[in-house]
Amino acid sequence: MTAVDLLTFGESLVSLRSAGPLALGGALTMHLAGAESNVAIGLARLGHRAAWVGRVSDDELGEYVLRQLRAEGVRVDGVTTDPARPAGLMFLERRTADVTRVRYHRTGSAGSALSVEDVRTPIAEGARVLHLTGITPALSGSARDAATWAAEAASRSGTLVCLDVNYRARLWTREAARATLTPLTAYASLVIASADELDLVDEPGADESTVVARLLTRGVRTVLVKLGADGARAHTRQGVRHVAAVPVTAVDTVGAGDAFSAGYLSGHLDGLDLDGRLRRAVTVGAFAVAGHGDWEGLPRRAELSLLDGHETGSTIR
Amino acid sequence: MTAVDLLTFGESLVSLRSAGPLALGGALTMHLAGAESNVAIGLARLGHRAAWVGRVSDDELGEYVLRQLRAEGVRVDGVTTDPARPAGLMFLERRTADVTRVRYHRTGSAGSALSVEDVRTPIAEGARVLHLTGITPALSGSARDAATWAAEAASRSGTLVCLDVNYRARLWTREAARATLTPLTAYASLVIASADELDLVDEPGADESTVVARLLTRGVRTVLVKLGADGARAHTRQGVRHVAAVPVTAVDTVGAGDAFSAGYLSGHLDGLDLDGRLRRAVTVGAFAVAGHGDWEGLPRRAELSLLDGHETGSTIR
Amino acid sequence: MTAVDLLTFGESLVSLRSAGPLALGGALTMHLAGAESNVAIGLARLGHRAAWVGRVSDDELGEYVLRQLRAEGVRVDGVTTDPARPAGLMFLERRTADVTRVRYHRTGSAGSALSVEDVRTPIAEGARVLHLTGITPALSGSARDAATWAAEAASRSGTLVCLDVNYRARLWTREAARATLTPLTAYASLVIASADELDLVDEPGADESTVVARLLTRGVRTVLVKLGADGARAHTRQGVRHVAAVPVTAVDTVGAGDAFSAGYLSGHLDGLDLDGRLRRAVTVGAFAVAGHGDWEGLPRRAELSLLDGHETGSTIR
Amino acid sequence: MTAVDLLTFGESLVSLRSAGPLALGGALTMHLAGAESNVAIGLARLGHRAAWVGRVSDDELGEYVLRQLRAEGVRVDGVTTDPARPAGLMFLERRTADVTRVRYHRTGSAGSALSVEDVRTPIAEGARVLHLTGITPALSGSARDAATWAAEAASRSGTLVCLDVNYRARLWTREAARATLTPLTAYASLVIASADELDLVDEPGADESTVVARLLTRGVRTVLVKLGADGARAHTRQGVRHVAAVPVTAVDTVGAGDAFSAGYLSGHLDGLDLDGRLRRAVTVGAFAVAGHGDWEGLPRRAELSLLDGHETGSTIR
Amino acid sequence: MTAVDLLTFGESLVSLRSAGPLALGGALTMHLAGAESNVAIGLARLGHRAAWVGRVSDDELGEYVLRQLRAEGVRVDGVTTDPARPAGLMFLERRTADVTRVRYHRTGSAGSALSVEDVRTPIAEGARVLHLTGITPALSGSARDAATWAAEAASRSGTLVCLDVNYRARLWTREAARATLTPLTAYASLVIASADELDLVDEPGADESTVVARLLTRGVRTVLVKLGADGARAHTRQGVRHVAAVPVTAVDTVGAGDAFSAGYLSGHLDGLDLDGRLRRAVTVGAFAVAGHGDWEGLPRRAELSLLDGHETGSTIR
Amino acid sequence: MTAVDLLTFGESLVSLRSAGPLALGGALTMHLAGAESNVAIGLARLGHRAAWVGRVSDDELGEYVLRQLRAEGVRVDGVTTDPARPAGLMFLERRTADVTRVRYHRTGSAGSALSVEDVRTPIAEGARVLHLTGITPALSGSARDAATWAAEAASRSGTLVCLDVNYRARLWTREAARATLTPLTAYASLVIASADELDLVDEPGADESTVVARLLTRGVRTVLVKLGADGARAHTRQGVRHVAAVPVTAVDTVGAGDAFSAGYLSGHLDGLDLDGRLRRAVTVGAFAVAGHGDWEGLPRRAELSLLDGHETGSTIR
Repeated sequence: MTAVDLLTFGESLVSLRSAGPLALGGALTMHLAGAESNVAIGLARLGHRAAWVGRVSDDELGEYVLRQLRAEGVRVDGVTTDPARPAGLMFLERRTADVTRVRYHRTGSAGSALSVEDVRTPIAEGARVLHLTGITPALSGSARDAATWAAEAASRSGTLVCLDVNYRARLWTREAARATLTPLTAYASLVIASADELDLVDEPGADESTVVARLLTRGVRTVLVKLGADGARAHTRQGVRHVAAVPVTAVDTVGAGDAFSAGYLSGHLDGLDLDGRLRRAVTVGAFAVAGHGDWEGLPRRAELSLLDGHETGSTIR
Repeated sequence: MTAVDLLTFGESLVSLRSAGPLALGGALTMHLAGAESNVAIGLARLGHRAAWVGRVSDDELGEYVLRQLRAEGVRVDGVTTDPARPAGLMFLERRTADVTRVRYHRTGSAGSALSVEDVRTPIAEGARVLHLTGITPALSGSARDAATWAAEAASRSGTLVCLDVNYRARLWTREAARATLTPLTAYASLVIASADELDLVDEPGADESTVVARLLTRGVRTVLVKLGADGARAHTRQGVRHVAAVPVTAVDTVGAGDAFSAGYLSGHLDGLDLDGRLRRAVTVGAFAVAGHGDWEGLPRRAELSLLDGHETGSTIR
Repeated sequence: MTAVDLLTFGESLVSLRSAGPLALGGALTMHLAGAESNVAIGLARLGHRAAWVGRVSDDELGEYVLRQLRAEGVRVDGVTTDPARPAGLMFLERRTADVTRVRYHRTGSAGSALSVEDVRTPIAEGARVLHLTGITPALSGSARDAATWAAEAASRSGTLVCLDVNYRARLWTREAARATLTPLTAYASLVIASADELDLVDEPGADESTVVARLLTRGVRTVLVKLGADGARAHTRQGVRHVAAVPVTAVDTVGAGDAFSAGYLSGHLDGLDLDGRLRRAVTVGAFAVAGHGDWEGLPRRAELSLLDGHETGSTIR
Repeated sequence: MTAVDLLTFGESLVSLRSAGPLALGGALTMHLAGAESNVAIGLARLGHRAAWVGRVSDDELGEYVLRQLRAEGVRVDGVTTDPARPAGLMFLERRTADVTRVRYHRTGSAGSALSVEDVRTPIAEGARVLHLTGITPALSGSARDAATWAAEAASRSGTLVCLDVNYRARLWTREAARATLTPLTAYASLVIASADELDLVDEPGADESTVVARLLTRGVRTVLVKLGADGARAHTRQGVRHVAAVPVTAVDTVGAGDAFSAGYLSGHLDGLDLDGRLRRAVTVGAFAVAGHGDWEGLPRRAELSLLDGHETGSTIR
Repeated sequence: MTAVDLLTFGESLVSLRSAGPLALGGALTMHLAGAESNVAIGLARLGHRAAWVGRVSDDELGEYVLRQLRAEGVRVDGVTTDPARPAGLMFLERRTADVTRVRYHRTGSAGSALSVEDVRTPIAEGARVLHLTGITPALSGSARDAATWAAEAASRSGTLVCLDVNYRARLWTREAARATLTPLTAYASLVIASADELDLVDEPGADESTVVARLLTRGVRTVLVKLGADGARAHTRQGVRHVAAVPVTAVDTVGAGDAFSAGYLSGHLDGLDLDGRLRRAVTVGAFAVAGHGDWEGLPRRAELSLLDGHETGSTIR
Repeated sequence: MTAVDLLTFGESLVSLRSAGPLALGGALTMHLAGAESNVAIGLARLGHRAAWVGRVSDDELGEYVLRQLRAEGVRVDGVTTDPARPAGLMFLERRTADVTRVRYHRTGSAGSALSVEDVRTPIAEGARVLHLTGITPALSGSARDAATWAAEAASRSGTLVCLDVNYRARLWTREAARATLTPLTAYASLVIASADELDLVDEPGADESTVVARLLTRGVRTVLVKLGADGARAHTRQGVRHVAAVPVTAVDTVGAGDAFSAGYLSGHLDGLDLDGRLRRAVTVGAFAVAGHGDWEGLPRRAELSLLDGHETGSTIR
């Protein structure tokens, strides 16, 4: 395998979506879920060579995960099939129009058994960008080791390391997250976080300017702060830039942050300047928000301009 | 059977919901419908002992009604299975995004044959609250007698009687409703109505303050006026209090009034003060509005705080 | 309106089909049901001018019935919209793979209020064939009068009258059916019945040869005995002929008898000899049995040969 | 066939709707699509005698088109079944909440082979109104000839000719549209266009007042300019009138323009004055916008007042 | 709680059914699954007082399990809600028309943590019959202890103990099953097994007569051997009786054994003789086989004769 | 790209499946269809490196085709995206339980424009087996040239050429097929045909032994005659061998022939002897027949033994 544009690893789950209250039963639909695979799909759709690495169960659910990734053109040559552990699952329940609730069934899953051995070859084969999220080190001790090892190895070999904080309260405490993620920033050129995640790579309660200053001092080149409907801020040594969100009718915000990351990294891989990267980031994020599913609505390259100048209710024919 | 927290009776229908114009055919989904059973479910979900009494058909549709009530933990020991009459039905058609249209097929139904005999034992067994709606006396002469008899009997035995006006234009005229409901208020401690229903328990065209004054004089302790998106007002001899609605994205307003009543009565059963009762009323009402179905989205006790501080698009994970 | 090939009248219901046990709820699908409209559709699909007359409710369910009939090219100019009565309904529950259960909600329906007035004009406008079933006179006194009046009037004006016994145990007793249907045969040229329905137009327990002899004596020209998977027998004064059923994989036998009648009448309208009529009868019947729904699978004229020489699993491409 | 109220012709397609991104597969739903048949349905629902003429494929898809039109009461006696050409198709993909994308598969379709021969008899039989759209002449040379021939013939015989510009960028260029449509206005009494389509019946870039002045000079009696959520403007020699849109929750804007035209023409056929026609136009348009599908939500006559005074979330019971 | 007719305990799972190959994704439907709850439902449908005991997760999936059981009238007062463990799941994939494949996700589930404490009160409250399966002791050490303790306690207090072997190869080996189940038979009056499970309560490879002799010697009163489409054999000290299966079109054999057990126990509770019990056993089993789902098609008491004399394709109307 | 195990090319269509009569509308489901891609998927599922080459439309339907192939692990690097031509479509209608009807919309499609240029590089890169069907040369002149050129080039370079006759009456006449396919056999080592297709590679009406003798003389090594439920016969110079079909409940025979070919070729690639190849052929064919869809039910390698010893209704758990 030749070097890819983007390498990422973590756990991809089978997400079972319920259209209404889960306790009432009815139909569930199967979806692929996982912050890292969302980013890989986002880049593959835009024409970049993206690879995802992880462990999947040796059964039809594991095969489901691989089918979805292959369908999207994400390279899965480095995936390990775990002969002993089950697929990780999550239930995603649209509890009310405003509140979506997630239940994980991922303890002891194949994906959570990720270890250094699983990522050694892919890292050795090289990539222009390594994308890490704060979810992977929360899965297990071996997964944490894999994340740390990979970040260091990639950083040493000149691969750009991107860390998206992606805090999951159901997996670990803020304290545990901080203790693991802060050292990881030493290897990262790019750190992405929502505003309330920023202090997970610094002291508890540290404010945005403090955190950013410290990260930039430690060698991080860019800090992206995701602001949801308010767009995003990018901090570099040259200062701070704000980009507004692309206005769309929001139907499903799950996956919007991953789409934002994918757009930014796509812009980086295309050699765009900071403004171009940010514009692409909010554009790809807007597609995620305007469509159902975590990644299903992400744009292909020819679609990047689809939202331009179209008001609500446009029909192209 | 030991005394329950809440006793209610009336007709529960099999509601057949159409996603689009009914004349075009397609799929219908079955739901349980009925203002009284909505309230019973609302209380059962919050952990109260709630019983529903009524007549159901002796076939699979009657069994459907019982299965739904049992599933929700509502006690149905007192229900009568009618060997001769069919299930009451309604068609609920989402005619446009804004207008929902209901057609009843309930003439001669099992539920409409409710009589004093059906409610005698449950009333004798006792309850802390008896919940009546203005729909039940509109069903038939025997149902009207049952409502009047039960209100008086319950009132005499110290059970708090709650009357929700719930005017249904397809069942009777405003004049007929007024003639029946006004005397019923004599037994009620709590009267609930929307603003345009208030004069159904007073003179035609009487304004809110007049109606309230008269009701309080006649012995009603609390008058709740439901204001939809504007919340509600509670009148007592101590004065009037307003509570704002809990802001949510509204997807289905059917059942919101029943949810409001259930929340208020739950607060009463829990011994909350008036403000606490009103807060619970609008909270439970908000769940009804933010979810599809008449009662399907009502909260369990542990969910009461779910809407707090969550803006649109929240994902809990 | 010019004279039609086939005129038929009766009640068409909105059939609500459940894929599984009805008490478990879930989705129902709407279908048009009615023995007479099944026959009219069968003839219209084969290119004959067919008219259906009856009363429908003045709401979306009545409009549904009309939409389905119009879609199939059945003329509905003579239909009366009843401003006061609801649509007749039936629930059709696939209780097990072998047993289908029907529940009617048709008491007091628009369709059951059919009267002589409703059929007077269509009869006056003329038709080559009048198709009656034993269901219509079971609906109400006025419907019985309409059937009798129409049979006599049509017979007098030279229209061929076809009577399909079609006994419905949920509508009347065998005795009541016998008392009404036997006199009706006086006007009929063609009588159709299943083997166990034959004695409903004669003495209780009369055997096939006895019943047939008596009918032929009374002026009936042809008696068709439907034998299900064993085909059918046709009795005329020239003797008896048997036709085997067309072998198909049976998935839904509801409507098969109506399809058989439609096929026979189509052969009659096309001037085929008895063998030709019987072959078309079993062919159209086979389509009904091999497809889901009461009439949905009936053949268009170009499809009449579709089942010839095709074994199970054929693909035409 | 007696003369109809409205005659229209063009191509009706089988529209395959996808609920999400088409590349992901899943279920598609079949619908009838076509600007002209939308208008015919709109009028038939309001009780007018409407006829649609065109060519359909001689297979199940052509039969599907006819079934839908017949179901809606549109007369299809004049339709030609093409023995050699396939049905025209379109894929309608809800790409995001805001953007709907259409792909046509109509090259060489039965519908595009429409010619003068297909419309000769219907025009001869007469109609009070002939409705033409700018889509028909874009289908093929023979269809363009048919449109021109029919406009002239109808105009000569005193039929009111209505031309709706309806520009389709996927079928032809603005230049080609202008060259064909501008001469057609010579036969039209009524011209309907959206604001950005106006210069397709005049010089490129001509502004509204210029275009309108020229059309009125050339003999057009009324020019309707559709403004979407801003309502519409009607220009006559007496001046200009504006009508506001009826406020509804918009769920699907496809077909809104056709509904507007149908409402206006219905008002004309009913002899309403200009204000009455415009009110009906925006009312029917509002139904299209507030319901799913191109025409499925259009009102029957008794429903015209359904949106009056109903705020969001109304339930009629 | 008064003593029930039947008490049973074990693990009830949320079963996720896939209509096709699971790896292809798509829709799953939620169902309640569990041999013991199947039996409880079977008895409740026939009007017996049945109670199920077990542990469920403290979330929406646990609530789903309870809703289904309550809906069916099974008493769940004794159920424990486990605050820490997730719901047990299974995927049921219709791999081909002939082969159904099950994958369990039940390791560490709430249900598998069942212990003596969970069953102590229900056993103390008493029951006429205790139904045990060989699945429960395979779940965990504590569940095995609970099964053994309950069998002994019930047996001592005069409750009839029924043991259904129900071997699950994915949970334990035949050797482990044999070591646990053989001693359990000491407390059982009734042992139920399929032919190839018989030696799991005896020496490996022991034939039917040997096993039966030994069981009858040890105090078992009746040994039922399930033979699928060949019916069943009942061994008692009085000899052996065979009962044929009720012929039906089989659509789903899952749950047939549990239905057979429920029918037999219902006959026992009704005081039927052996032949009567066997007839009811095969009748209830036939309903399970002729309907979709593990228990959804089980008969209510009034339906027990529904399959009598109905050939394939019967319609009751 | 390294050499693959199997290379095949042709047209893959988007198949729109209707569950009932197409004229009634309703839902269609999208599927990938194409004899050659079926074979490629069959081999990829069994772990072989399989590549499919062809032209797809440059839109969401072309992307759909690619997604499905990628999902199944079929290599699509050699696929050409056609900027100008639409996707080929087919409608597959389950007309009755026994008869399935296909309508193609493939005239002028991207897939039919396949030419020598599209296959030149894949052939140059090499493959162990080249699989051709008689459908590809029926698509267009350029596709016929591509098939002939590829067969000759592959044959010359030592690639085993397999020709599956696969006659499609809707694409060409038997005479046209014979004229094209007979010369193609000169390059084939393996010829596959159903019994009634054999004379399409010989004189009209030639019998099996004559055709086989001639093919073997001309250099073909193996002739496989598919016999449906009767299995298959393999002719070589060593004589003839028959293999019985694997008995399964047939639910969908579409794709069974392609599955048979895939199984045989898999056996060849694994180096099995003739009996082993035939056993695998009928095994893979049985999976196709026992599952819904053209290829969806094909086995992965670990599933090859799944049908062994399982009678109808087996549940693996």
